[in-house]
Amino acid sequence: MTTESSFINLLRGFATDPAARGLLDDVAVIDIGDASLIITHDMMAEGVHFRSNANPADVAWKLLATNLSDLAAKGAAPVGVLLGFMLGDDAWDRSFAAGLKEALAHYNVALLGGDTVANRGDKRALGLTALGRAKHIPVPSRSGAQIGDIVYVTGTLGDALAGFELIDAGFDEVGPLADAFNRPVARLADGQKLAPIVSAMMDVSDGLLLDAERLARASQIGIEIDLARVPLSPLYISYRTDSLESRMQAASWGDDYQLLFTASPEASLSVPATAIGRVISGGGLTLKDGVNPVKLPPTLGYQHQ
Amino acid sequence: MTTESSFINLLRGFATDPAARGLLDDVAVIDIGDASLIITHDMMAEGVHFRSNANPADVAWKLLATNLSDLAAKGAAPVGVLLGFMLGDDAWDRSFAAGLKEALAHYNVALLGGDTVANRGDKRALGLTALGRAKHIPVPSRSGAQIGDIVYVTGTLGDALAGFELIDAGFDEVGPLADAFNRPVARLADGQKLAPIVSAMMDVSDGLLLDAERLARASQIGIEIDLARVPLSPLYISYRTDSLESRMQAASWGDDYQLLFTASPEASLSVPATAIGRVISGGGLTLKDGVNPVKLPPTLGYQHQ
Repeated sequence: MTTESSFINLLRGFATDPAARGLLDDVAVIDIGDASLIITHDMMAEGVHFRSNANPADVAWKLLATNLSDLAAKGAAPVGVLLGFMLGDDAWDRSFAAGLKEALAHYNVALLGGDTVANRGDKRALGLTALGRAKHIPVPSRSGAQIGDIVYVTGTLGDALAGFELIDAGFDEVGPLADAFNRPVARLADGQKLAPIVSAMMDVSDGLLLDAERLARASQIGIEIDLARVPLSPLYISYRTDSLESRMQAASWGDDYQLLFTASPEASLSVPATAIGRVISGGGLTLKDGVNPVKLPPTLGYQHQ
Repeated sequence: MTTESSFINLLRGFATDPAARGLLDDVAVIDIGDASLIITHDMMAEGVHFRSNANPADVAWKLLATNLSDLAAKGAAPVGVLLGFMLGDDAWDRSFAAGLKEALAHYNVALLGGDTVANRGDKRALGLTALGRAKHIPVPSRSGAQIGDIVYVTGTLGDALAGFELIDAGFDEVGPLADAFNRPVARLADGQKLAPIVSAMMDVSDGLLLDAERLARASQIGIEIDLARVPLSPLYISYRTDSLESRMQAASWGDDYQLLFTASPEASLSVPATAIGRVISGGGLTLKDGVNPVKLPPTLGYQHQ
């Protein structure tokens, strides 16, 4: 079984166009005439990204939101999307279409085209390509963090983890924690406001610690995160208490789709965000809890296989 | 089980942006600054578009070529592609990556990004998004055919059908007919040369008759095709003889990826092509064999389910 990283390494050998950004970013950035176009493609597979019994309308919502979240991290405004859809059960497909319609209307994004295929297998795979137009040049990347910068994250972390666990345990799916997992929010407006002041930015899709480590690697600097500052929601705290362990879990689980960014200490933030650490020399990630050093957990986040 | 057409009808209800072209075209056309961008997304599913024992390098080639063929029909020059890849067996994935590298180099196209996912099912699905830049404005569509125009097709038809049958029968896969099926050619240079003189254009992906009928419907005119003029290769003729029946088969099977287009009788063709019919009043498709009318076959081409 090939792993994602070994396959991407194979591709990296010939994805040498500068627009590919060495396949180190979530998106490609293409200069077309006088505009910078952002393009991203994310897939969702049954049994990996969604349960076989998930609400198809939620699957549609999440497929759109996760792709738009990649645009948000570039400060881009969506232009439209193309859908790659595997046909199946009629009721499922109708519910998916209805959910997609609702999500597109929510984000005011156009469906431009795509493809549908029959499914001869026992599981579905869905894909979405999202196109956006950069609102600020240069387009933020993962690789611009500078020593001395502050590390920030928008919103709170862990709600999607709590929602996932509640759904897994058979609880009602309509609560706000379940919603955080099923219907994540792409922070498009925040991304556009932040793009002019950040030195690096990405969305938190696979876990704060893992994504921060990727940002550190891409920027060739070190990142120190103070777990005591990781922002938690009152709901998450009431679900799981406020402890170092629960903060560590919130920081090493994905699906939050908040924006992780670095900015100079002089920058005046244009959206609410929490300072959770700083950019230091060296490489990779270091953790602390207030003044106490904390060992890295064995798993920093969701590693795709 | 939803059919492709019923699902697309659902989507059409909310894909109302003009760039979506009513989901009647193979591509979306987006004006970005001073450029017209062409974007298309095609999927290939195991058991539907490729055999489980197909050469993975051929699958990669075909996935790229079928998407580039959609750009060719718009007279566009490729900008780059994004890959949606389902991981699996290591040898398969390596062979796919090698085939993709070779095909990208052949077409001089950049791999810009994409996504990989694990596969929890028993079949693979792959997707590719291709981006192109229009070289001629207005961008050719399916809907511009005018009564009195001549109907043309590039190259020959039926070789891919013969190749498919030979592979199915267990014959060696390396012959030119098998190649026609496994490694179709996207006619990018032809499309760019034809774009300024055509009234309508599309690629023949699902069969000449079916695609001509779609072009007729999109243009709200009738198309009459003379089967006696359908161009066949010497190899196809030696494989299957030159009869009305073999011409009908070549015209109602897909995977040829030739360009089907209409142009005024005064237009001077910029690439070799065969005049196979004319645009008439009325709607839909009518067939003849020289002077004799021919009934439409029950199946005009490959209907996606």
